[in-house]
Amino acid sequence: MKIETIASLNEVGVQDLAGKTVIVIDVLRASSCIVTALAGGCREVVPVETVGQAKQAFEEGSLLGGERSCRKIPGFDLGNSPLEYLKETVKDKRIIMTTTNGTKAVQKALKAENVLIGSMLNGTACIRAALQLKKDIVLICAGTQHVFSLEDGLCAGFLLDEADKIEGARQMEIDDLGLALLYGYKQAKSDLTQAFHRCANGRRLHKLGFRQDVFFCCQQNLYLTVPIWREGRLIELLS
Amino acid sequence: MKIETIASLNEVGVQDLAGKTVIVIDVLRASSCIVTALAGGCREVVPVETVGQAKQAFEEGSLLGGERSCRKIPGFDLGNSPLEYLKETVKDKRIIMTTTNGTKAVQKALKAENVLIGSMLNGTACIRAALQLKKDIVLICAGTQHVFSLEDGLCAGFLLDEADKIEGARQMEIDDLGLALLYGYKQAKSDLTQAFHRCANGRRLHKLGFRQDVFFCCQQNLYLTVPIWREGRLIELLS
Repeated sequence: MKIETIASLNEVGVQDLAGKTVIVIDVLRASSCIVTALAGGCREVVPVETVGQAKQAFEEGSLLGGERSCRKIPGFDLGNSPLEYLKETVKDKRIIMTTTNGTKAVQKALKAENVLIGSMLNGTACIRAALQLKKDIVLICAGTQHVFSLEDGLCAGFLLDEADKIEGARQMEIDDLGLALLYGYKQAKSDLTQAFHRCANGRRLHKLGFRQDVFFCCQQNLYLTVPIWREGRLIELLS
Repeated sequence: MKIETIASLNEVGVQDLAGKTVIVIDVLRASSCIVTALAGGCREVVPVETVGQAKQAFEEGSLLGGERSCRKIPGFDLGNSPLEYLKETVKDKRIIMTTTNGTKAVQKALKAENVLIGSMLNGTACIRAALQLKKDIVLICAGTQHVFSLEDGLCAGFLLDEADKIEGARQMEIDDLGLALLYGYKQAKSDLTQAFHRCANGRRLHKLGFRQDVFFCCQQNLYLTVPIWREGRLIELLS
Protein backbone atom coordinates (compact mmCIF):
# COMPACT_ATOMS: atom_id res chain seq x y z
CA MET A 1 0.00 0.00 0.00
CA LYS A 2 1.20 3.49 -0.87
CA ILE A 3 0.88 6.51 1.41
CA GLU A 4 1.66 9.88 -0.20
CA THR A 5 1.93 13.12 1.72
CA ILE A 6 1.15 16.55 0.26
CA ALA A 7 2.78 19.53 1.98
CA SER A 8 0.10 22.17 1.46
CA LEU A 9 -3.23 22.81 -0.17
CA ASN A 10 -1.92 24.43 -3.35
CA GLU A 11 0.01 21.29 -4.24
CA VAL A 12 -3.16 19.23 -4.40
CA GLY A 13 -4.34 18.64 -7.94
CA VAL A 14 -0.94 17.78 -9.35
CA GLN A 15 -1.61 14.49 -7.62
CA ASP A 16 -4.19 12.05 -8.77
CA LEU A 17 -6.67 11.44 -5.96
CA ALA A 18 -9.08 9.21 -7.91
CA GLY A 19 -9.69 5.85 -6.30
CA LYS A 20 -7.73 6.76 -3.18
CA THR A 21 -8.51 7.53 0.45
CA VAL A 22 -7.64 11.10 1.39
CA ILE A 23 -7.10 12.26 4.94
CA VAL A 24 -7.46 16.03 5.29
CA ILE A 25 -5.28 17.42 8.09
CA ASP A 26 -5.79 20.98 9.33
CA VAL A 27 -4.80 20.60 12.96
CA LEU A 28 -4.98 24.29 13.95
CA ARG A 29 -7.93 24.25 13.96
CA ALA A 30 -10.55 23.09 11.44
CA SER A 31 -9.83 19.35 11.63
CA SER A 32 -9.75 19.49 15.41
CA CYS A 33 -13.12 21.31 15.52
CA ILE A 34 -14.79 18.82 13.19
CA VAL A 35 -13.48 15.80 15.12
CA THR A 36 -14.48 17.37 18.45
CA ALA A 37 -17.97 18.22 17.19
CA LEU A 38 -18.70 14.73 15.88
CA ALA A 39 -17.21 13.17 19.02
CA GLY A 40 -19.61 15.37 20.99
CA GLY A 41 -22.64 13.95 19.20
CA CYS A 42 -23.19 16.57 16.51
CA ARG A 43 -25.23 14.99 13.69
CA GLU A 44 -23.23 16.33 10.78
CA VAL A 45 -20.80 19.04 9.74
CA VAL A 46 -21.48 20.77 6.42
CA PRO A 47 -18.36 22.54 5.14
CA VAL A 48 -19.05 25.48 2.82
CA GLU A 49 -16.66 27.95 1.22
CA THR A 50 -18.28 31.34 1.83
CA VAL A 51 -20.13 33.14 4.61
CA GLY A 52 -23.04 33.63 2.19
CA GLN A 53 -23.27 29.90 1.50
CA ALA A 54 -23.20 29.20 5.24
CA LYS A 55 -26.12 31.56 5.89
CA GLN A 56 -28.03 30.08 2.96
CA ALA A 57 -27.60 26.54 4.31
CA PHE A 58 -28.89 27.53 7.75
CA GLU A 59 -32.09 25.90 9.01
CA GLU A 60 -33.71 25.08 12.37
CA GLY A 61 -31.38 23.02 14.56
CA SER A 62 -28.26 24.28 12.79
CA LEU A 63 -25.31 26.16 14.22
CA LEU A 64 -23.12 28.45 12.12
CA GLY A 65 -19.41 28.04 12.75
CA GLY A 66 -16.16 29.27 11.29
CA GLU A 67 -13.51 31.96 11.12
CA ARG A 68 -11.87 34.60 9.03
CA SER A 69 -8.35 35.64 10.12
CA CYS A 70 -8.68 33.25 13.09
CA ARG A 71 -11.69 35.19 14.49
CA LYS A 72 -15.36 34.20 14.78
CA ILE A 73 -17.49 35.52 11.91
CA PRO A 74 -19.98 38.24 13.02
CA GLY A 75 -23.43 36.74 13.61
CA PHE A 76 -22.13 33.17 13.77
CA ASP A 77 -22.76 30.87 16.77
CA LEU A 78 -19.28 29.41 16.92
CA GLY A 79 -15.75 30.42 15.91
CA ASN A 80 -12.96 28.02 15.06
CA SER A 81 -11.99 26.94 18.57
CA PRO A 82 -12.53 23.23 19.30
CA LEU A 83 -13.42 24.19 22.87
CA GLU A 84 -16.60 25.76 21.45
CA TYR A 85 -17.54 22.46 19.78
CA LEU A 86 -17.96 20.34 22.91
CA LYS A 87 -20.93 18.04 23.64
CA GLU A 88 -23.03 20.55 25.64
CA THR A 89 -23.17 22.87 22.64
CA VAL A 90 -23.20 20.57 19.63
CA LYS A 91 -25.14 17.44 20.62
CA ASP A 92 -27.75 16.54 17.96
CA LYS A 93 -27.03 19.73 16.05
CA ARG A 94 -26.11 20.22 12.43
CA ILE A 95 -23.11 22.51 12.03
CA ILE A 96 -22.50 24.60 8.94
CA MET A 97 -18.88 25.57 8.87
CA THR A 98 -16.64 27.84 6.83
CA THR A 99 -12.94 28.31 7.52
CA THR A 100 -10.17 29.92 5.48
CA ASN A 101 -8.27 26.76 4.64
CA GLY A 102 -9.89 23.66 6.10
CA THR A 103 -13.07 23.94 4.08
CA LYS A 104 -11.14 24.43 0.85
CA ALA A 105 -9.02 21.39 1.66
CA VAL A 106 -12.14 19.24 1.96
CA GLN A 107 -13.52 20.61 -1.33
CA LYS A 108 -10.24 19.86 -3.11
CA ALA A 109 -10.18 16.34 -1.70
CA LEU A 110 -13.56 15.39 -3.14
CA LYS A 111 -12.01 13.77 -6.22
CA ALA A 112 -10.90 10.94 -3.94
CA GLU A 113 -12.92 7.78 -3.31
CA ASN A 114 -13.00 8.40 0.45
CA VAL A 115 -12.36 11.60 2.40
CA LEU A 116 -11.59 11.39 6.13
CA ILE A 117 -10.64 14.13 8.58
CA GLY A 118 -7.50 13.64 10.64
CA SER A 119 -6.05 15.45 13.62
CA MET A 120 -3.90 14.70 16.63
CA LEU A 121 -7.15 14.16 18.56
CA ASN A 122 -8.18 11.11 16.49
CA GLY A 123 -4.92 10.05 14.80
CA THR A 124 -4.83 6.33 15.54
CA ALA A 125 -8.55 5.79 14.84
CA CYS A 126 -8.28 7.78 11.62
CA ILE A 127 -5.33 5.95 10.06
CA ARG A 128 -6.75 2.62 11.20
CA ALA A 129 -10.03 3.41 9.41
CA ALA A 130 -8.14 4.54 6.31
CA LEU A 131 -6.10 1.32 6.19
CA GLN A 132 -9.31 -0.72 6.50
CA LEU A 133 -10.65 0.96 3.36
CA LYS A 134 -7.84 -0.86 1.47
CA LYS A 135 -7.03 1.94 -0.96
CA ASP A 136 -3.82 3.90 -1.40
CA ILE A 137 -3.80 6.82 1.02
CA VAL A 138 -3.02 10.51 0.47
CA LEU A 139 -2.38 12.70 3.51
CA ILE A 140 -3.20 16.32 2.64
CA CYS A 141 -1.57 18.75 5.05
CA ALA A 142 -3.79 21.80 4.56
CA GLY A 143 -1.12 24.28 5.61
CA THR A 144 -1.81 27.99 5.92
CA GLN A 145 -2.20 30.31 2.97
CA HIS A 146 -0.50 27.81 0.65
CA VAL A 147 2.47 27.28 2.95
CA PHE A 148 3.38 24.12 4.87
CA SER A 149 2.40 24.16 8.57
CA LEU A 150 4.46 22.24 11.11
CA GLU A 151 1.48 20.99 13.13
CA ASP A 152 -0.11 19.41 10.05
CA GLY A 153 3.22 17.82 9.13
CA LEU A 154 3.69 16.40 12.62
CA CYS A 155 0.16 14.99 12.46
CA ALA A 156 1.00 13.34 9.13
CA GLY A 157 4.11 11.90 10.81
CA PHE A 158 1.92 10.61 13.63
CA LEU A 159 -0.44 8.87 11.20
CA LEU A 160 2.52 7.35 9.32
CA ASP A 161 4.04 6.12 12.58
CA GLU A 162 0.75 4.45 13.51
CA ALA A 163 0.43 2.96 10.00
CA ASP A 164 3.98 1.60 10.34
CA LYS A 165 2.97 -0.09 13.59
CA ILE A 166 -0.25 -1.55 12.20
CA GLU A 167 0.93 -2.67 8.77
CA GLY A 168 4.64 -3.11 9.34
CA ALA A 169 7.08 -0.79 7.62
CA ARG A 170 7.83 -3.32 4.87
CA GLN A 171 4.23 -3.40 3.70
CA MET A 172 4.12 0.32 3.08
CA GLU A 173 5.51 2.60 0.44
CA ILE A 174 6.01 6.02 2.03
CA ASP A 175 7.25 8.93 -0.11
CA ASP A 176 10.20 11.12 0.83
CA LEU A 177 8.14 13.91 2.41
CA GLY A 178 6.31 11.31 4.49
CA LEU A 179 9.62 9.80 5.61
CA ALA A 180 10.92 13.25 6.64
CA LEU A 181 7.74 13.93 8.63
CA LEU A 182 7.84 10.47 10.18
CA TYR A 183 11.37 11.19 11.43
CA GLY A 184 10.23 14.65 12.55
CA TYR A 185 7.25 13.33 14.48
CA LYS A 186 9.36 10.69 16.25
CA GLN A 187 11.73 13.42 17.40
CA ALA A 188 8.99 15.87 18.43
CA LYS A 189 6.47 13.48 20.00
CA SER A 190 7.97 13.60 23.48
CA ASP A 191 7.12 17.31 23.64
CA LEU A 192 4.43 18.16 21.09
CA THR A 193 3.32 21.12 23.20
CA GLN A 194 6.67 22.80 22.66
CA ALA A 195 6.60 22.07 18.92
CA PHE A 196 3.06 23.42 18.62
CA HIS A 197 4.03 26.62 20.39
CA ARG A 198 7.15 27.13 18.23
CA CYS A 199 5.41 26.90 14.85
CA ALA A 200 3.87 29.87 13.04
CA ASN A 201 0.19 29.04 13.74
CA GLY A 202 0.89 28.21 17.36
CA ARG A 203 2.57 31.59 17.87
CA ARG A 204 -0.20 33.40 15.99
CA LEU A 205 -2.97 31.75 18.05
CA HIS A 206 -1.06 32.40 21.24
CA LYS A 207 -0.89 36.12 20.40
CA LEU A 208 -4.60 36.24 19.56
CA GLY A 209 -5.54 34.73 22.92
CA PHE A 210 -6.22 31.16 21.74
CA ARG A 211 -3.43 29.52 23.77
CA GLN A 212 -5.82 26.92 25.20
CA ASP A 213 -6.71 25.80 21.66
CA VAL A 214 -3.07 25.03 20.94
CA PHE A 215 -2.82 22.93 24.11
CA PHE A 216 -6.09 21.19 23.25
CA CYS A 217 -5.22 20.40 19.61
CA CYS A 218 -1.86 18.76 20.36
CA GLN A 219 -3.47 16.06 22.50
CA GLN A 220 -3.18 12.62 20.89
CA ASN A 221 -6.05 10.15 20.63
CA LEU A 222 -8.55 11.95 22.81
CA TYR A 223 -11.28 10.59 20.53
CA LEU A 224 -12.01 7.48 18.47
CA THR A 225 -14.24 9.48 16.12
CA VAL A 226 -13.43 9.44 12.40
CA PRO A 227 -15.27 12.02 10.27
CA ILE A 228 -16.01 10.81 6.73
CA TRP A 229 -17.50 12.65 3.74
CA ARG A 230 -20.92 11.36 2.67
CA GLU A 231 -23.21 13.19 0.27
CA GLY A 232 -22.28 16.77 0.98
CA ARG A 233 -21.49 16.51 4.66
CA LEU A 234 -19.13 15.02 7.22
CA ILE A 235 -20.54 12.37 9.53
CA GLU A 236 -19.04 9.92 11.97
CA LEU A 237 -17.71 6.75 10.34
CA LEU A 238 -19.11 3.88 12.34
CA SER A 239 -16.71 0.97 12.48
CA MET B 1 18.19 36.42 11.19
CA LYS B 2 15.66 34.48 9.12
CA ILE B 3 16.29 31.09 7.54
CA GLU B 4 13.65 29.91 5.06
CA THR B 5 13.57 26.44 3.55
CA ILE B 6 12.15 25.61 0.12
CA ALA B 7 11.04 22.02 -0.44
CA SER B 8 11.81 21.63 -4.13
CA LEU B 9 13.03 23.49 -7.17
CA ASN B 10 9.62 24.34 -8.63
CA GLU B 11 8.70 26.28 -5.50
CA VAL B 12 11.57 28.71 -6.01
CA GLY B 13 10.44 31.98 -7.51
CA VAL B 14 7.41 32.41 -5.31
CA GLN B 15 10.01 33.42 -2.76
CA ASP B 16 11.97 36.60 -2.99
CA LEU B 17 15.66 35.76 -3.09
CA ALA B 18 16.95 39.32 -3.63
CA GLY B 19 19.46 40.46 -1.04
CA LYS B 20 19.64 37.01 0.55
CA THR B 21 22.18 34.20 0.78
CA VAL B 22 20.95 31.05 -0.92
CA ILE B 23 22.36 27.60 -0.22
CA VAL B 24 21.59 25.13 -3.02
CA ILE B 25 21.28 21.57 -1.74
CA ASP B 26 21.24 18.65 -4.17
CA VAL B 27 22.87 15.96 -2.05
CA LEU B 28 22.39 13.02 -4.47
CA ARG B 29 24.54 14.00 -6.22
CA ALA B 30 25.29 17.37 -7.87
CA SER B 31 26.10 19.32 -4.67
CA SER B 32 28.29 16.49 -3.42
CA CYS B 33 30.21 16.40 -6.75
CA ILE B 34 30.82 20.15 -6.77
CA VAL B 35 32.01 20.20 -3.16
CA THR B 36 34.26 17.17 -3.74
CA ALA B 37 35.74 18.68 -6.91
CA LEU B 38 36.62 22.03 -5.31
CA ALA B 39 37.93 20.24 -2.21
CA GLY B 40 40.18 18.26 -4.57
CA GLY B 41 41.73 21.39 -6.00
CA CYS B 42 39.64 21.88 -9.12
CA ARG B 43 39.92 25.56 -10.21
CA GLU B 44 36.26 26.16 -10.94
CA VAL B 45 32.99 24.44 -11.77
CA VAL B 46 30.89 25.97 -14.55
CA PRO B 47 27.27 24.76 -14.34
CA VAL B 48 25.40 24.84 -17.66
CA GLU B 49 21.90 23.69 -18.53
CA THR B 50 22.34 21.67 -21.73
CA VAL B 51 24.79 19.17 -23.19
CA GLY B 52 25.26 21.54 -26.14
CA GLN B 53 26.22 24.43 -23.84
CA ALA B 54 28.66 22.15 -22.02
CA LYS B 55 30.42 21.19 -25.26
CA GLN B 56 30.50 24.83 -26.38
CA ALA B 57 32.15 25.91 -23.11
CA PHE B 58 34.86 23.25 -23.44
CA GLU B 59 38.47 24.42 -23.80
CA GLU B 60 41.97 23.03 -23.07
CA GLY B 61 42.28 21.97 -19.41
CA SER B 62 38.54 21.44 -19.01
CA LEU B 63 36.66 18.31 -18.07
CA LEU B 64 33.06 17.69 -19.10
CA GLY B 65 30.89 16.27 -16.34
CA GLY B 66 27.24 15.50 -15.73
CA GLU B 67 24.37 13.11 -16.12
CA ARG B 68 21.04 12.42 -17.72
CA SER B 69 18.80 9.86 -15.94
CA CYS B 70 21.64 9.31 -13.41
CA ARG B 71 24.04 8.09 -16.16
CA LYS B 72 27.20 9.70 -17.59
CA ILE B 73 26.56 11.63 -20.82
CA PRO B 74 28.16 9.96 -23.89
CA GLY B 75 31.50 11.58 -24.71
CA PHE B 76 31.82 13.25 -21.30
CA ASP B 77 34.85 12.74 -19.03
CA LEU B 78 32.89 12.40 -15.81
CA GLY B 79 29.40 11.34 -14.73
CA ASN B 80 27.64 12.51 -11.60
CA SER B 81 29.43 10.36 -9.04
CA PRO B 82 31.47 12.32 -6.46
CA LEU B 83 33.98 9.46 -6.47
CA GLU B 84 34.91 10.53 -10.02
CA TYR B 85 35.65 14.07 -8.80
CA LEU B 86 38.55 13.28 -6.47
CA LYS B 87 41.88 15.13 -6.39
CA GLU B 88 43.81 12.85 -8.77
CA THR B 89 41.33 13.60 -11.54
CA VAL B 90 40.25 17.19 -10.94
CA LYS B 91 43.28 19.07 -9.54
CA ASP B 92 43.85 22.38 -11.39
CA LYS B 93 41.12 21.51 -13.89
CA ARG B 94 38.09 23.51 -14.93
CA ILE B 95 34.93 21.41 -14.87
CA ILE B 96 31.92 22.14 -17.06
CA MET B 97 28.95 20.41 -15.57
CA THR B 98 25.33 19.73 -16.51
CA THR B 99 22.93 17.74 -14.37
CA THR B 100 19.17 17.31 -14.55
CA ASN B 101 18.30 19.25 -11.42
CA GLY B 102 21.37 20.64 -9.67
CA THR B 103 22.36 22.95 -12.50
CA LYS B 104 18.84 24.34 -12.80
CA ALA B 105 18.78 24.94 -9.06
CA VAL B 106 21.92 27.07 -9.30
CA GLN B 107 20.48 29.04 -12.24
CA LYS B 108 17.26 29.70 -10.34
CA ALA B 109 19.22 30.83 -7.28
CA LEU B 110 21.10 33.55 -9.14
CA LYS B 111 18.63 36.25 -8.10
CA ALA B 112 20.13 36.00 -4.63
CA GLU B 113 22.99 38.17 -3.38
CA ASN B 114 25.13 35.12 -2.57
CA VAL B 115 24.83 31.54 -3.81
CA LEU B 116 26.61 28.75 -1.93
CA ILE B 117 26.52 24.99 -2.48
CA GLY B 118 25.66 22.81 0.50
CA SER B 119 25.83 19.07 1.11
CA MET B 120 26.35 16.68 3.98
CA LEU B 121 30.05 16.69 3.06
CA ASN B 122 30.54 20.39 3.90
CA GLY B 123 27.50 21.20 6.06
CA THR B 124 29.08 22.93 9.02
CA ALA B 125 31.52 24.98 6.92
CA CYS B 126 28.71 25.98 4.56
CA ILE B 127 26.23 27.26 7.13
CA ARG B 128 29.05 28.96 9.05
CA ALA B 129 30.07 30.83 5.88
CA ALA B 130 26.44 31.74 5.16
CA LEU B 131 25.94 33.13 8.66
CA GLN B 132 29.10 35.21 8.28
CA LEU B 133 27.62 36.87 5.18
CA LYS B 134 25.01 38.44 7.54
CA LYS B 135 22.04 38.17 5.20
CA ASP B 136 18.83 36.23 5.60
CA ILE B 137 19.35 32.70 4.35
CA VAL B 138 17.25 30.56 1.99
CA LEU B 139 17.91 26.82 1.85
CA ILE B 140 16.82 25.46 -1.54
CA CYS B 141 16.31 21.71 -1.46
CA ALA B 142 16.63 20.91 -5.16
CA GLY B 143 14.53 17.75 -4.98
CA THR B 144 14.01 15.46 -7.93
CA GLN B 145 11.74 16.28 -10.85
CA HIS B 146 9.91 18.92 -8.81
CA VAL B 147 9.33 16.64 -5.84
CA PHE B 148 10.88 16.92 -2.36
CA SER B 149 13.82 14.56 -1.72
CA LEU B 150 14.50 13.26 1.77
CA GLU B 151 18.29 13.55 1.53
CA ASP B 152 18.07 17.25 0.65
CA GLY B 153 15.64 17.80 3.50
CA LEU B 154 17.87 16.04 6.01
CA CYS B 155 20.79 18.16 4.81
CA ALA B 156 18.66 21.30 5.36
CA GLY B 157 17.91 19.99 8.86
CA PHE B 158 21.64 19.46 9.42
CA LEU B 159 22.43 23.06 8.41
CA LEU B 160 19.64 24.37 10.65
CA ASP B 161 20.92 22.31 13.57
CA GLU B 162 24.41 23.74 13.08
CA ALA B 163 22.98 27.27 12.76
CA ASP B 164 21.08 26.72 16.00
CA LYS B 165 24.31 25.75 17.72
CA ILE B 166 26.28 28.71 16.32
CA GLU B 167 23.70 31.47 16.66
CA GLY B 168 21.50 30.13 19.43
CA ALA B 169 17.92 29.14 18.65
CA ARG B 170 16.53 32.42 20.00
CA GLN B 171 18.44 34.48 17.47
CA MET B 172 16.95 32.67 14.54
CA GLU B 173 13.61 32.70 12.83
CA ILE B 174 13.09 29.29 11.23
CA ASP B 175 9.98 28.62 9.15
CA ASP B 176 7.69 25.63 9.70
CA LEU B 177 9.24 23.44 7.01
CA GLY B 178 12.67 24.16 8.45
CA LEU B 179 11.45 23.20 11.92
CA ALA B 180 10.01 19.92 10.60
CA LEU B 181 13.31 19.10 8.86
CA LEU B 182 15.30 20.09 11.94
CA TYR B 183 13.26 17.62 13.99
CA GLY B 184 13.65 15.04 11.21
CA TYR B 185 17.41 15.44 11.01
CA LYS B 186 17.82 15.12 14.78
CA GLN B 187 15.92 11.84 14.66
CA ALA B 188 17.73 10.48 11.59
CA LYS B 189 21.29 11.64 12.31
CA SER B 190 22.28 8.58 14.33
CA ASP B 191 21.79 6.47 11.21
CA LEU B 192 21.91 8.63 8.09
CA THR B 193 23.04 5.66 6.02
CA GLN B 194 19.74 3.93 6.67
CA ALA B 195 17.74 7.07 5.86
CA PHE B 196 19.70 7.62 2.63
CA HIS B 197 19.02 4.06 1.55
CA ARG B 198 15.30 4.26 2.33
CA CYS B 199 14.57 7.40 0.29
CA ALA B 200 13.62 7.35 -3.40
CA ASN B 201 16.96 8.56 -4.80
CA GLY B 202 18.94 6.25 -2.54
CA ARG B 203 16.93 3.27 -3.76
CA ARG B 204 17.21 4.38 -7.38
CA LEU B 205 21.00 4.82 -7.18
CA HIS B 206 21.35 1.51 -5.40
CA LYS B 207 19.52 -0.24 -8.25
CA LEU B 208 21.65 1.50 -10.87
CA GLY B 209 24.88 0.34 -9.22
CA PHE B 210 25.79 3.60 -7.46
CA ARG B 211 25.54 2.26 -3.91
CA GLN B 212 28.99 3.61 -3.01
CA ASP B 213 27.85 7.13 -3.96
CA VAL B 214 25.02 6.94 -1.44
CA PHE B 215 27.45 5.90 1.30
CA PHE B 216 29.86 8.65 0.27
CA CYS B 217 27.27 11.46 0.12
CA CYS B 218 25.83 10.85 3.58
CA GLN B 219 29.17 11.50 5.29
CA GLN B 220 29.10 14.67 7.36
CA ASN B 221 31.82 17.33 7.29
CA LEU B 222 34.37 15.46 5.23
CA TYR B 223 35.40 18.84 3.77
CA LEU B 224 35.69 22.47 4.84
CA THR B 225 35.23 23.63 1.25
CA VAL B 226 32.38 26.07 0.50
CA PRO B 227 31.58 26.59 -3.20
CA ILE B 228 30.36 30.12 -3.99
CA TRP B 229 29.03 31.61 -7.23
CA ARG B 230 31.27 34.30 -8.75
CA GLU B 231 30.87 35.63 -12.30
CA GLY B 232 29.46 32.60 -14.03
CA ARG B 233 31.22 29.86 -12.10
CA LEU B 234 31.55 28.18 -8.73
CA ILE B 235 34.84 28.62 -6.90
CA GLU B 236 36.04 27.90 -3.40
CA LEU B 237 35.12 30.61 -0.88
CA LEU B 238 38.28 31.40 1.01
CA SER B 239 37.56 32.33 4.59
